[in-house]
Amino acid sequence: MTEACAAPAATGAATATVGDSEFDRDTAVVAREPGVYDADLSAGWTIISAVNGGYLLAVLGRALADALPHPDPITVTAHYLGASQPGPAVVRTETVRTGRTLSSGQASLFQRDAEGREVERVRVMATYGDLAALPDDVRTTAKPPAIPPYEHCLGAEDGPADIPGSSAITERLRLKLDPTTAGWAVGAPSGKGEMRAWFGLADGRDHDPLSVLLAVDALPPTAFELGLRGWVPTVELTVHVRCRPAPGPLRVAITTRNLAGGFLEEDAEVWDSADRLVAQSRQLAKAPRG
Amino acid sequence: MTEACAAPAATGAATATVGDSEFDRDTAVVAREPGVYDADLSAGWTIISAVNGGYLLAVLGRALADALPHPDPITVTAHYLGASQPGPAVVRTETVRTGRTLSSGQASLFQRDAEGREVERVRVMATYGDLAALPDDVRTTAKPPAIPPYEHCLGAEDGPADIPGSSAITERLRLKLDPTTAGWAVGAPSGKGEMRAWFGLADGRDHDPLSVLLAVDALPPTAFELGLRGWVPTVELTVHVRCRPAPGPLRVAITTRNLAGGFLEEDAEVWDSADRLVAQSRQLAKAPRG
Repeated sequence: MTEACAAPAATGAATATVGDSEFDRDTAVVAREPGVYDADLSAGWTIISAVNGGYLLAVLGRALADALPHPDPITVTAHYLGASQPGPAVVRTETVRTGRTLSSGQASLFQRDAEGREVERVRVMATYGDLAALPDDVRTTAKPPAIPPYEHCLGAEDGPADIPGSSAITERLRLKLDPTTAGWAVGAPSGKGEMRAWFGLADGRDHDPLSVLLAVDALPPTAFELGLRGWVPTVELTVHVRCRPAPGPLRVAITTRNLAGGFLEEDAEVWDSADRLVAQSRQLAKAPRG
Repeated sequence: MTEACAAPAATGAATATVGDSEFDRDTAVVAREPGVYDADLSAGWTIISAVNGGYLLAVLGRALADALPHPDPITVTAHYLGASQPGPAVVRTETVRTGRTLSSGQASLFQRDAEGREVERVRVMATYGDLAALPDDVRTTAKPPAIPPYEHCLGAEDGPADIPGSSAITERLRLKLDPTTAGWAVGAPSGKGEMRAWFGLADGRDHDPLSVLLAVDALPPTAFELGLRGWVPTVELTVHVRCRPAPGPLRVAITTRNLAGGFLEEDAEVWDSADRLVAQSRQLAKAPRG
């Protein structure tokens, strides 16, 4: 039994690898000319009918990783301008600044509307670096989230037949919710703006910085645990990737502290199996009316 | 005695107002053509010789407030590409999307280098709205920072002659540090990554969303309380403005939880005199080596 198979997230079948997996195939970008990439947004990463924001971030992040001289996203901000649909898309990048250790760039994802006009769906501003080249110093007071063992958490297969909000993306993920933050699924939300989960990819692919971009926007909205239902559209999402994730599932903890004026923030932390803080993110979203 | 004069931050002299103050004059932008603005970065808002990042954000924010159909910054992200110097600058804006309640835009600040070439110093991506038009709903678990009364906090006038890091900007601000987070100034940092202060403008101007952009990057770095000294350059800073600030001084609390790989985050909360959470921000900065 290999080490990968011993991980709780492994299936009995062959395990996908970074570079050869559903996630890699579905976030692939093909250079049409320098800095311009064709992508095909997969229907496999949709929630209801809209393409997931974290998946979009990964597609844009992959284009920037190719366009910029540094390989890894360090800080990425996305403004979501309109809902993206499965199907063809083009990503146009701009290299803004290149330095020795960091480079900055911008990328926009366009799709064609019913009249064939190009419409910008997402715009990203990012600074890239090389996570493997960073020093090993860590001085942290942040603590990994208190989350029950993997086998005590709840997956889609444990829930009622129709968990609200679940959709195609559910099949691509190995998402196991902390039962104390899953009350919404059975009509008993905790009233706290918290959501915690183990996060893996269904085909067993380990994580890299691009799948971390997916992880920060893949859990059900904290608004569900506040007793609100409905669409929670992201206005803006910023992720800081702080280190390369170790193999194995991630733990993601999301907190909403302030719902006001029709907006709420979702703060996410992503921790790896080595108990390191892999990423911090915050998004501003429109609060559901329910 | 007017209500404004009764506020702890008031001087005996005439009090400046929003629109007629040092801050307004120094962040003024003049339209050269639609979407392009001339600015003159004031030496009054420098730390050592570099222009403060929050002041730059306010200059860019003012240009976007003019260029976009909505008046108030709701979420603003800045990538700092290089240090800005006092003197002339040009801000070029782009309107990315206009909607009924929100509009998104981008702005870049350029200065000329020694050879007369235009160099981009800061790029901002933002979504604007109308804070006055937002609903009054508030459901928050966030609490105002525990900070001693204004008169028990420490200003530049209370410190040793040469507080490290103090500079021209100090004279423009009415910044009073919580003594428990000011140990660094007397060589006894707490070791915690925390900084808390009352924040006002020296001429008594009340706050508006633009001065809130200044507030989130105006305190001494939390790194000082971690026992580190030296320059803490911001890579990226995102601010969410959640409501219009009430009159009177603000309270700003900044926390660093994770210093790793040569980077640290600074999370700021800004609270107003009505105990409302006015803004949340996070910046990624390079950790000092000291």
